[in-house]
Amino acid sequence: MIADWLKTRLLALNLTDAMTRPEGFTRLSFTKEELEAQRVFKEEAEALGMTVRSDAVGNVIARLDGKSDGPAHAFGSHLDTVTNGGGYDGTAGVLTALGAVRLLQDAGITPEKPIEVICFVSEESSRFSMSTVGSKAMAGMLTREQLDTITDQDGVTLGEAMRDAGFNPDAFKEAERGETELLSFTELHIEQGMRIEHAGKEYGAAAAIACPIRMHVTISGKAGHTGTTPMDQRKDALTEAAGLITFVQQAALKLNDYDDYPLVATVSTIDSRPNAMNVIPGTVVLGIDIRSVSDQQKKRMEAAIDGWMSQSQFDIEKDVIVRNASVTLDADIYDKLRKLEEETGYTCLGMESGAGHDVMNMQTKWPSGLLFIPCRDGLSHHPDEHASLEDLVKGTELLFHHMKSVSR
Amino acid sequence: MIADWLKTRLLALNLTDAMTRPEGFTRLSFTKEELEAQRVFKEEAEALGMTVRSDAVGNVIARLDGKSDGPAHAFGSHLDTVTNGGGYDGTAGVLTALGAVRLLQDAGITPEKPIEVICFVSEESSRFSMSTVGSKAMAGMLTREQLDTITDQDGVTLGEAMRDAGFNPDAFKEAERGETELLSFTELHIEQGMRIEHAGKEYGAAAAIACPIRMHVTISGKAGHTGTTPMDQRKDALTEAAGLITFVQQAALKLNDYDDYPLVATVSTIDSRPNAMNVIPGTVVLGIDIRSVSDQQKKRMEAAIDGWMSQSQFDIEKDVIVRNASVTLDADIYDKLRKLEEETGYTCLGMESGAGHDVMNMQTKWPSGLLFIPCRDGLSHHPDEHASLEDLVKGTELLFHHMKSVSR
Repeated sequence: MIADWLKTRLLALNLTDAMTRPEGFTRLSFTKEELEAQRVFKEEAEALGMTVRSDAVGNVIARLDGKSDGPAHAFGSHLDTVTNGGGYDGTAGVLTALGAVRLLQDAGITPEKPIEVICFVSEESSRFSMSTVGSKAMAGMLTREQLDTITDQDGVTLGEAMRDAGFNPDAFKEAERGETELLSFTELHIEQGMRIEHAGKEYGAAAAIACPIRMHVTISGKAGHTGTTPMDQRKDALTEAAGLITFVQQAALKLNDYDDYPLVATVSTIDSRPNAMNVIPGTVVLGIDIRSVSDQQKKRMEAAIDGWMSQSQFDIEKDVIVRNASVTLDADIYDKLRKLEEETGYTCLGMESGAGHDVMNMQTKWPSGLLFIPCRDGLSHHPDEHASLEDLVKGTELLFHHMKSVSR
Repeated sequence: MIADWLKTRLLALNLTDAMTRPEGFTRLSFTKEELEAQRVFKEEAEALGMTVRSDAVGNVIARLDGKSDGPAHAFGSHLDTVTNGGGYDGTAGVLTALGAVRLLQDAGITPEKPIEVICFVSEESSRFSMSTVGSKAMAGMLTREQLDTITDQDGVTLGEAMRDAGFNPDAFKEAERGETELLSFTELHIEQGMRIEHAGKEYGAAAAIACPIRMHVTISGKAGHTGTTPMDQRKDALTEAAGLITFVQQAALKLNDYDDYPLVATVSTIDSRPNAMNVIPGTVVLGIDIRSVSDQQKKRMEAAIDGWMSQSQFDIEKDVIVRNASVTLDADIYDKLRKLEEETGYTCLGMESGAGHDVMNMQTKWPSGLLFIPCRDGLSHHPDEHASLEDLVKGTELLFHHMKSVSR
């Protein structure tokens, strides 16, 4: 049964005996944990009779021959996680794509066109401040400068991490694929929200992706001794940062009243220096993540932050790391994914994606689509992240029918 | 000239060619930088004909024989610094005490009683959350539990750091000295504030020390994906922490209006987890430092924080690390230090100390006193920390006269 097959492979890809773990899963980009999960993926793909290769940056591409040679229909997601994340974000997409290939074979179907299952490397931005490294490379969006300048907390560059993992950053251009190499790309992912359940549906098909604006805001005050600097003579950078943290939340709540397009804004990282018990914080760097499918909403939020900064008495600098326009996915694939309702009997919610995924890069070059299955309480990037086995089976069936449909 | 002598030894003790350095000085507890500064101290003390020894925990004790054997009058401070701190906090006290011994010898004076200059190890709490480790050990206040359980950011315990530095934590009790071994202890320190200048005086003598209440407050919310968790369904621990940071500052300002005893309260450390760009902060730990010579004022501030916590909708835990009653220094030595005005011609401000110093531990066992010299803009724990050479000369003269007076 496919359920049993999925259950054992879910554990194997997560390098675990049990999906419930207090500390969750930590497979950061280009670490040995990510490489080990990729190794399991390779073994499973080979067991399905697929031919597997890794590209220069670390993507793993498993290919199933079709009746005709030439361009393939591709599927897949990623196996890296955030720190103390869950075992479904990314993994569910890789697992169900392999499962769909398994169902093809169980049904004795040889597809007309080749099928690929791609395991993209380094999707999460937990280690480096940039996400979707592997799909960027494949779509030709990765740059030499990013490899050389983006660093982790220990000062290791993206390129160095890639090399340390056994790949070749100098050949990153070789990971780019031509427009004619793929016919389509479809990703399945856990929703990481509650909209499918709230709508009383069973799966989601995304028409567009809300891509983020991300920035660092550096607030400079003056360090000093906590015991001898009177309250009225301080320039405490952390108290000023607290004002901005509160402001971001309030402004984001307000913008949701103001416009039908939802917006989220989060002060997700903070680095306070020197961070010592007896020193008044001198400098604080905040990381802010703003998302909406409406680029206009994102601009309003950024303008609100600019306005707050301009009224501060502190020395403040803003450094925009990412400012990506939201991505509209392929309309034809979106229609096909919605119409899987008829073939499978599962009910579909047409929706947008609040999170970025590898598919947003693939869409820049190939017609691409995005399927969602529910996850418990909408929770993700957390040890309690969970998708039921039923929903994994459902996702596998949806991908199986989609594979059959596009590759016939 | 003593000025030249002080100038070169100031550089030597700071292991530098120039006191102006953008990054300041970093000599954390039990690191090779602290050990290297101690080594310079030993050489300088030996050059003055003193006998030098290190005790089991790493304090360095330099002894000048007096005409009679037996208990000594002790002076000194410390050589460790905060991260990116200045070259005067601690160092000024060690330097001027050595300088005063030099002046004794220049004047051909052999003191009646032996003189000690003590360089206490690990005074700052930047590496470990506990301050004044060396003087605690000497006064018999250090515990086995502290050595075994207090850790730095890398999980190294205080005891392990002590051992790694070449000392013997198992023998920490040997560092404790008997009441009859010392007749008095006097520390000179930079003021780390502006009260001496504001009063139009030239040095300060402290009657009491404002010891801190220090606590960690852990705020637990729920981590989640920044892109897919709507603003109204979040439990963002950092936004709640921002509320507490703002509250602490406002409550401290208010308490200064309410009572003549000044109070300072600082949220000086913050640790937000997982601190990743695409994850809503799930847990935030704040470090709060509260000080006043009035224990009543500190209690009021702690009660205000308790009140704020009880009204929060988040799961919050408070962990008090330190709750030390403020310390009254020896009245007789305080009088002697004030009366140095007559012998030296320098004008004195009688005051309290807003910061803790090694002398607060020494006072629990031996009659102790605390002298302040001004520092520029009251700035300390900062690369711009500065005491003028004139003030270092002044401090040396004050200690010289005090040495002569007590040891005659």
